[in-house]
This record gives sequence, C-alpha cells and structure tokens, in this order.
Amino acid sequence: MNFKNALVAQSGGPTAAINATLAGVIRQCRKENGIGCVYGAINGIEGLLEGKLADIGRAAGGDENLDLLIRTPAMALGSCRYRLSDPAIDKADYEKVEKVLKKYNIGYVFYIGGNDSMDTANKLAVYLSGCLPGIKVIGIPKTIDNDLTVTDHTPGFGSAAKFVATAMLEIVRDCRINHIPSVTIVEVMGRHAGWLAAAAALPNYFGVGAPQMVYLPEIAFDAQKFIADVKERVSADHTVIIAVSEGVKTQSGEYLCFMNENVPTDAFGHKSLSGAGRCLEHLVREQIGCKVRSVELNILQRCASHCASLTDLTEAQGIGAQAVKAAAAGHTGKLVYFKRVSDDPYTVEFGLCGLSEVANLEKPFPREWINENGNGITERGYRYILPLIKGTVEPVTDGYLPKHFVLESDCVL
Amino acid sequence: MNFKNALVAQSGGPTAAINATLAGVIRQCRKENGIGCVYGAINGIEGLLEGKLADIGRAAGGDENLDLLIRTPAMALGSCRYRLSDPAIDKADYEKVEKVLKKYNIGYVFYIGGNDSMDTANKLAVYLSGCLPGIKVIGIPKTIDNDLTVTDHTPGFGSAAKFVATAMLEIVRDCRINHIPSVTIVEVMGRHAGWLAAAAALPNYFGVGAPQMVYLPEIAFDAQKFIADVKERVSADHTVIIAVSEGVKTQSGEYLCFMNENVPTDAFGHKSLSGAGRCLEHLVREQIGCKVRSVELNILQRCASHCASLTDLTEAQGIGAQAVKAAAAGHTGKLVYFKRVSDDPYTVEFGLCGLSEVANLEKPFPREWINENGNGITERGYRYILPLIKGTVEPVTDGYLPKHFVLESDCVL
Repeated sequence: MNFKNALVAQSGGPTAAINATLAGVIRQCRKENGIGCVYGAINGIEGLLEGKLADIGRAAGGDENLDLLIRTPAMALGSCRYRLSDPAIDKADYEKVEKVLKKYNIGYVFYIGGNDSMDTANKLAVYLSGCLPGIKVIGIPKTIDNDLTVTDHTPGFGSAAKFVATAMLEIVRDCRINHIPSVTIVEVMGRHAGWLAAAAALPNYFGVGAPQMVYLPEIAFDAQKFIADVKERVSADHTVIIAVSEGVKTQSGEYLCFMNENVPTDAFGHKSLSGAGRCLEHLVREQIGCKVRSVELNILQRCASHCASLTDLTEAQGIGAQAVKAAAAGHTGKLVYFKRVSDDPYTVEFGLCGLSEVANLEKPFPREWINENGNGITERGYRYILPLIKGTVEPVTDGYLPKHFVLESDCVL
Repeated sequence: MNFKNALVAQSGGPTAAINATLAGVIRQCRKENGIGCVYGAINGIEGLLEGKLADIGRAAGGDENLDLLIRTPAMALGSCRYRLSDPAIDKADYEKVEKVLKKYNIGYVFYIGGNDSMDTANKLAVYLSGCLPGIKVIGIPKTIDNDLTVTDHTPGFGSAAKFVATAMLEIVRDCRINHIPSVTIVEVMGRHAGWLAAAAALPNYFGVGAPQMVYLPEIAFDAQKFIADVKERVSADHTVIIAVSEGVKTQSGEYLCFMNENVPTDAFGHKSLSGAGRCLEHLVREQIGCKVRSVELNILQRCASHCASLTDLTEAQGIGAQAVKAAAAGHTGKLVYFKRVSDDPYTVEFGLCGLSEVANLEKPFPREWINENGNGITERGYRYILPLIKGTVEPVTDGYLPKHFVLESDCVL
C-alpha cells in the first residue's frame, strides 16, 4: 500500500475553535492523495498510549456533520493533561505510541494544543524521527489564553475574546440602570498573560466608556493605587466596571487572591476559593464601602460557541488544513502558525517553525499596549484584537438550542 | 387640546426583553390618535417623583433606533427599587407624582416590572383614580424569574431561559472532555421560584443526558440524599453536571448557603459570599472528594441579549402594544398578561386582570412538573418552557460587538 493514515489529537483546555481545526484537518486529509483514514486519539496522548482511537474521518463524514463539528465547543475527541516522560530517562511511553502508530499504518500525526501540548508533540517528533522517520508530526496551536510564542495569535482566542467583550458590554448595560455608586468587578481567564483581560476592555474602543479599568498579569498590582483610582472613578462616573485577569499578581509575585489576609479560607484553610475578582471585591468593600459585586465569567469563556468569532472559526479550519499540507510536503517537528501582514485590511499568512521554539514558552501582552497607568489598553492593543473577533457564526439549531457534534461510540475502534 | 401624553417607566431587575416592551409601547402609542408624546421616567418611580423625564418617543424615533432598543439589555430608562408609601399614611410621594403628571399632560401611565413594581403601579392607579380619574395606569409584566402570578409567563424569562439552557449545554461539552470523575455545579438565578433552574435542565430534553440533577427552591434540600445521588451518578457517568437555584433552602427553611458550617465567612463574619453552588461544591469536596467546581452564571442570565429568544422579544413588544390598547380603551389599574391556549402549536392570548391580583405575590414552579425524586424536570415542565425559548434574534452589529440603544442626554427633559 502506498497511502498512510493520519492521526489527530486534541489536548489541554477547551476552546470554541479546537473542533474547527479538527474539521480543517479532516477536510484537507480527504483532499490529499497519499492520506487514507483520519483517526482520532481519544483523550489526546492518553488515547495514543492506550491504543484508543476513533475513526473520526468517518464519524464526521458529510458536510452536515463537519458543520456541526466546527460549531461544537471543547474537544470532540476528549482531552488530557498527561506529560510525556523524557525519552532519555524512560522510553516506555514512546514504545507504546510506536506500536499503535504502526498498527494503524499512521504516516501523519497532528497534535492540536497549547504550549504544554507542543512539548508532547515535540517529544514525539524527536523520538519518531529516530525510529520511524517516515512519520510526520505537526503541531497546531490552540488556546484561549493566546500566550503561545512565535504565532501572531492562537485559534480559540478570537472566540473567547468575542464572548468576553460581548459579556462585558452587556454587563455594562446591566450595571448602569441604577444611579447609586457601584463597582462591578469581572474576573477573566488568563493565568499567565493578559490577552483575554485586554479583550474585556474592548467596549471602550466603541465609545462605551467602560470598563473603566483593566488589570493584567503583566503589571504588578498596587492595592493603594487601585483604591485611589476606584474612588476617583466612582465619584466621577457612579457606575464603575473593572476587568481583572485571574493571573494578576502583587509586587511580591503572589497571585492576587492570596494578597488580602481577610479573604475567606475554606474548611481546609485554603484560600484558593477566592479568585482575583473576589479579592478586589473585598478590597473595595473594606476600603471604599460602596455597593460592590464580583462576577466570574468562568468556563463559558472557553466554550461559548454560541458567540464564536467567524474569523476565529475560519482561521482555525485554515490552520488545520495548512498543517496537513505541511505534513504532506514532508515537514515534521513543526508548528503551523499565523504571521500578521496587516491589521487593516486584516491579512495573515501561515508560517512553520520548530516545535521546540514554542514548547513550554509563554508570550505576555506587550507592555507598550498597556497605558502608562498600567490599568488600560492602548489603541494599538485594541487594533490587534479587533480583527480576531470579527464576524458571527450562526449556530445550527432547530430553533431551541444549538446542535453539537457528538462522537458516536460505534466509531470508536 | 384633545390628546394626552403617555408616560412609561421600567423598574426592578434587568432583563433582555424589558426594552422590547418599551419599544412595543412606543410603537403602539404612535398609532393611537389620542396619544401625543411618549415620555419615559428616568429610574422608574424615582424619575416620576423628581420630575426627571426623557422624551423617549423622540429618542427612539425611527425604525433603526427601535430595532436597537429591542436588542438592548437592561433598562434604557434606568431602574429603581423604591417602594411607595401607603397613601393612607403618607401622601407626599403621590402629590409629587400628581404634579408631574399634570405638568406633562399625561393621560396614560405604563409601568413595566415584576411583582414589587406591580405594587407601585397598583398604588398609583388607586390613588389617581381618586384625584385624576382620567389617567389610565396599566402594568406590564417583566422578570427573568417568571414568578408573577396570573400570567402564563413573563417577558424576559424566555431569553434568560435560552441563555441558561445554551450555557448549560456548552458547559456539558466542556466538562465531558476528561474521563476522570468530576462534578460541576452551576448556580442559576431565582431567589424564590425554580423556573430558571428548570430551564437549566433543558439539555436533557434533547437527549444530552445532562445536567443529571437539578435543585429548585420548591423542594427542601436533603444533603444526605444529595450526596448519595451524586455518588451514584459519578460512578455511573463519571462527568456529573448539576444545576442549582440560588433560592434552594434546607428543610428548616434556611438558604442553602447558610447550611454548611464550613462555608467560609468573609472579613465581617458574613457567610453571604457563598452561594448555593459553592455550598454544594463544599459538600461534594468534603463528602465525596472527587474533582468538583462551581460556576455562577451570575448577571449574564438577565442581560445576555446576544442570546435572546425571538419568541420572548416578539411577545415583549406585543404585550407592550397591548397595554397601550387597553389604556386607550379606558382600562386602568390592570395588568396585561399572557394566557396560554396551547403548547403545540404554541398559542397565547392576552388577558387583563387587576393589579392587586399580582402585586407582591409569587408563583412557584409546579410540584407536578418536578420528578418524584425532587431533582429533575418532567416532560410537561419542558413542554411549558420550550416555546418560550424558540427562535434567535440576530444582534445589530458592525461585525465586532452588538450595538445598543443609549438614551442621549439631549432627550432628557
């Protein structure tokens, strides 16, 4: 036989775009003459270790199923957080993978994930280049955090940013109905980088005048300055809305949630229950005393497909297809990424870099895109995010709830 | 002059439909020969007391502005929580209102709100029938809680229910990516009645098999039974999703958040920070020990216009128009309400009842629509909710974020 099968895996945290990338991989594999079946590893690398695969190419057969897959949040194939051992120390995992890849006549491995997942893809690529050099391994970026290096942005970020910005705008409308002084603090995901928190500030770009402040992990938090700034804004605007990244840290490098000694502890003495938003809520209540509440946008940020960005889902499919083209052209150990050519008209090109260039690394939100005060986003920052949230994707629906793709058990091998 | 002006006010908590009702009032007022301007009271009854009105008819002039208004969450005119005194004890407020109504030649008052607001409307209607009997006062229902009596449902509920059910479905997809045992608890609004929590269970109707349990304020919470049920479901399904109403109470009638002695207290010794979801999270962590998290859908439930129900926004406009027709026909002291004729095909008619029949009363979710176990919704319950969430409303947008109606200050009188 002169064809090889493809294997695709999804890993890390969910996004609204990771299945669009999977759909892009499937569609392009069908177009490549040298590629036979498209298998999916159930639960990422774990499925590959246990030989638990699905015939995802068949499961997503037909345009109707692919359309559903594109609009389905989280991983249709399941995810994992498993970290492969160093092959110099322990080869057991790699030998299991090798066996499964041989059994299913795999010639192409596509690993969709964030920076941790790229570590897995890189280790696989390096190992396989020694024992099965015919197998091409390509990594495809994905994360709502947008903190992968090299690439201009990551699929999944645009949809998360669109949901966060839309929610912020609606929360601003909600908060402004009363004319008593009030502070609303909205906590946004992003443990290490402020990209998503920056997106929360987008209503400002459209003249909404809120959220008035935004706090990113890139700037050490100064509680005194925070209180002074909030007091000033409350007396000027009455209704103050603040976005805060869950990853904000104090000057001594501690997460915000541990800063306030009065933050409640749980039954086990853990302070971890309180996020950054709740911490700021406490601070405002204690130091200012006006009406205050905190809101966590929580996991909806990463799975709200009903508010996905058309640009994001389109690009997510595109980069999946591009990964297949790169593998078919003989590349291995590479990450497909986006190079931005221009903001307006928004233009991107694809690039290829070594997986080791991105594995385990993080890209912060640029300091020069944050205002001097450290609590707002500059025009340049907004212009970066804007094209990524452009366009809407109508859910497939019978009028009631969105329809989703679900992997049927008869497609699991 | 033989025409009279109309005055409209919005009150209580925000919804995604309360501005659609306002738009319905404005549009119908334009059609009535006897009605001149449409004024809006800024911040509900407070604006009426202070003489702070806006020319909302002019502000929302043109179909384009009305379309924006229909799609804008929360109150375009602002809200209030002011409670009118008993006129037998203190007439001061009423005399202020009387003066403002005379000054602006008001013949029709439309008060959009929940059961507290209907108390305000009723007091106004009773008082005015004595001193200015020409003025017609009509109440229009609004609340995401759906707990108003007499009416089949309230505008605002359908959109909140659609957002909650959509979010639940996406959360289910998000939670199912890992194959380790986990419990996710989603807290839904509804302090006194379980209508919105019941909507959170809707994915079950579409065969999703989750959320596996739902807890409503109508059923006293039994912690032992809860733990036993969760244990059983975790071992059967691995991934368990639970919806809980913020209003769930223990058998002794206390809110759930106060039940668990280990719930953290804040700096002031308050336990109020912890909602029902967090309380159940603690319970599961202590008694079962598997991975557990809680999610509060929070204020997005009442303001997520980007996920509004077409049925809801259409009916909200319709009931606004119907209120104007009723007033023009000479009715006063009445509430316009929905009578459901059939579930399928879904048909409703309008009714009129006395405001005193609804003021301050609450309608629970029917016990017979909850399963025998007290932790699920029956088919009959789903069939009640389904037509109310039907259809989607595309936001007006330039491709980035939804556009909203904002009352310009030059329209404030």
